[in-house]
Amino acid sequence: MSLTFLSLLFRFILAVGWTVDLRTTPDNYLQFPSAAPFKIALFADLHFGENAWTDWGPKQDVNSVKVMSTVLDKENPDFVVYLGDVVTANNIMVGNASLYWDQAISPTKARGIPWASVFGNHDDAPFVWPMKWFSDSGIPQLRCPAANSSHLGEEDCSFRGTPRLELMRNEIMDNALSYSKTGPKELWPSVSNYVLQLSSSNDPRSPVAFLYFMDSGGGSYPEVLSGTQAKWFDSKSNELNPDSRVPEIIFWHIPSIAYGRVAPTFLPLSFCVGSINKESVAAQEAEMGIMKLLQERPSVKAVFVGHNHGLDWCCPYKKLWLCFARHSGYGGYGNWARGARILEITQQPFSLKSWIRMEDGHTHSEVILSS
Amino acid sequence: MSLTFLSLLFRFILAVGWTVDLRTTPDNYLQFPSAAPFKIALFADLHFGENAWTDWGPKQDVNSVKVMSTVLDKENPDFVVYLGDVVTANNIMVGNASLYWDQAISPTKARGIPWASVFGNHDDAPFVWPMKWFSDSGIPQLRCPAANSSHLGEEDCSFRGTPRLELMRNEIMDNALSYSKTGPKELWPSVSNYVLQLSSSNDPRSPVAFLYFMDSGGGSYPEVLSGTQAKWFDSKSNELNPDSRVPEIIFWHIPSIAYGRVAPTFLPLSFCVGSINKESVAAQEAEMGIMKLLQERPSVKAVFVGHNHGLDWCCPYKKLWLCFARHSGYGGYGNWARGARILEITQQPFSLKSWIRMEDGHTHSEVILSS
Repeated sequence: MSLTFLSLLFRFILAVGWTVDLRTTPDNYLQFPSAAPFKIALFADLHFGENAWTDWGPKQDVNSVKVMSTVLDKENPDFVVYLGDVVTANNIMVGNASLYWDQAISPTKARGIPWASVFGNHDDAPFVWPMKWFSDSGIPQLRCPAANSSHLGEEDCSFRGTPRLELMRNEIMDNALSYSKTGPKELWPSVSNYVLQLSSSNDPRSPVAFLYFMDSGGGSYPEVLSGTQAKWFDSKSNELNPDSRVPEIIFWHIPSIAYGRVAPTFLPLSFCVGSINKESVAAQEAEMGIMKLLQERPSVKAVFVGHNHGLDWCCPYKKLWLCFARHSGYGGYGNWARGARILEITQQPFSLKSWIRMEDGHTHSEVILSS
Repeated sequence: MSLTFLSLLFRFILAVGWTVDLRTTPDNYLQFPSAAPFKIALFADLHFGENAWTDWGPKQDVNSVKVMSTVLDKENPDFVVYLGDVVTANNIMVGNASLYWDQAISPTKARGIPWASVFGNHDDAPFVWPMKWFSDSGIPQLRCPAANSSHLGEEDCSFRGTPRLELMRNEIMDNALSYSKTGPKELWPSVSNYVLQLSSSNDPRSPVAFLYFMDSGGGSYPEVLSGTQAKWFDSKSNELNPDSRVPEIIFWHIPSIAYGRVAPTFLPLSFCVGSINKESVAAQEAEMGIMKLLQERPSVKAVFVGHNHGLDWCCPYKKLWLCFARHSGYGGYGNWARGARILEITQQPFSLKSWIRMEDGHTHSEVILSS
């Protein structure tokens, strides 16, 4: 009797344990609101807060808000992805760069559109003091917190950049529409690592696609996707989508080294689709295994990155597509016209189409990424 | 009557204003304890906390404590100057680098010797994450503060370096023997700028020398002595010592560009005095005016810097001497034997002599810097 009880208890523990193991879930769920295609706008390299101490800087941020407003009003997307370099923290002279981060998400928030963000190399960078301030001109009036003001002290006058965790927690805490996450602690200092399930309009449990957001580093640590992040993707994708039945779409900021290998010499004569090809790929510092996993997984359809302001192409690479977004911000280098890459996803059958919407309203570079 | 009263009041205001202007004082006072010479030991480039995550790192700090202990016991100085790069903050994985700073000052404190410190380029540098941690090896166990622990949060796991102001305030707050200051706010982000009066044993009001401590930058901002710092020195020295009657001795971390101009090609055949000349001068990024002021001021006897671990010479430059200290720490690059430059000051007549005391106890490179 007591043996039977123990045996039953043991089986129960095993069963519960097993169930718990299997119950890996996405970090959050999005759902197609109707049978209509689901539309995502990618805002890349907004660079809010650039040259914040000049007249020029704040004007650029006003222009960036206009770009986003135009894109949002023309496309009316269901979701927005902030693809890193949301702020130019190395130019920001306040103790908490979330002030500028909030400005960057305001057009999306004002329209009630949900969003998710990943980090770029500028988002948590420490302030870079301009050399000319040390010559006779002196340092402009700084807004240093008083010694005993709230949680900030005069020490914050050293503008050491706002840590990724703090930026992300501020975003999440203040915004019910944010789908961003700080990601598993074992992946830190890499923070924006999470997966969203895009569910069918008919059944919130039925995934149409998994959207993976990853932190490609830079700023306070090297520009790289770590081996630990690769393992996290491997384990997460195999648990959520073991038979690779559901399409997967990947978002991060800095192009992998593989982007450099597919970069076209002359864009119109290549298999790539895009409108500008004005610079070399500024790739991550090393490849620690993520690309091998992605290229061997049939369900991975495309990777979307920002970082290079003078590139906006999508190129085929093995079984998937490697795509740049489009420079959306007036901050950051380069004067190529601003715009945003749009993704359009259909449910049955699944399809992934993309184009670029420019700030003057026109569109170009349409490409099917699911074939 | 009322006009006379107003006129008197006006004169009174003028007089008080004039008195206040004249009453510029040093930031603190040291005094010769007796008629015997006053001795100062310079500890340069201790680099505590280097490779703190290895077995090797903490062993170096133990060795550096031994160097300081030997020097202090052999020389029994009246005062110690910490000449910057006290810690290697770019290797320090704790929220507050003062933990390591405290270790560096402990041998001096334990002997009841007062000290002053200036900042080097490593002292407030943010943590540099080793690239290899992002490969398969993963990141070693990090000691991140829990989310709600005291004033630190999990955000401190990003190890952004401890601001100069915080390092200095911690030093001053915890140590009655510290003569360091955070310096005038208008010179920030440059912090360790202050002047100590070394007074005669007979009269605490009578200066034998003024010791100027300055912050030559680096770490969180450019490696430079700013134009504003030059103006501060100009005004301070003219007020405290208007007729250049009292000798002045200067301490900062990174050699000025002028050091490169006097650097000997072959040390024994030059006018310089020293024992190692193993590398090029790694000078400040620009010269914003301080050297012109120093060389034109007859009371300035010598400048002492660290930064270059493979140089320990004093060379004549115009009317003054430009001296390197001696690498005192086991942290930092280079395996040249460790030691400390010693200064010996006499009152009447004033003289400034210097030599280097090595960790094995022997001395060398004696030079008179007041002639």
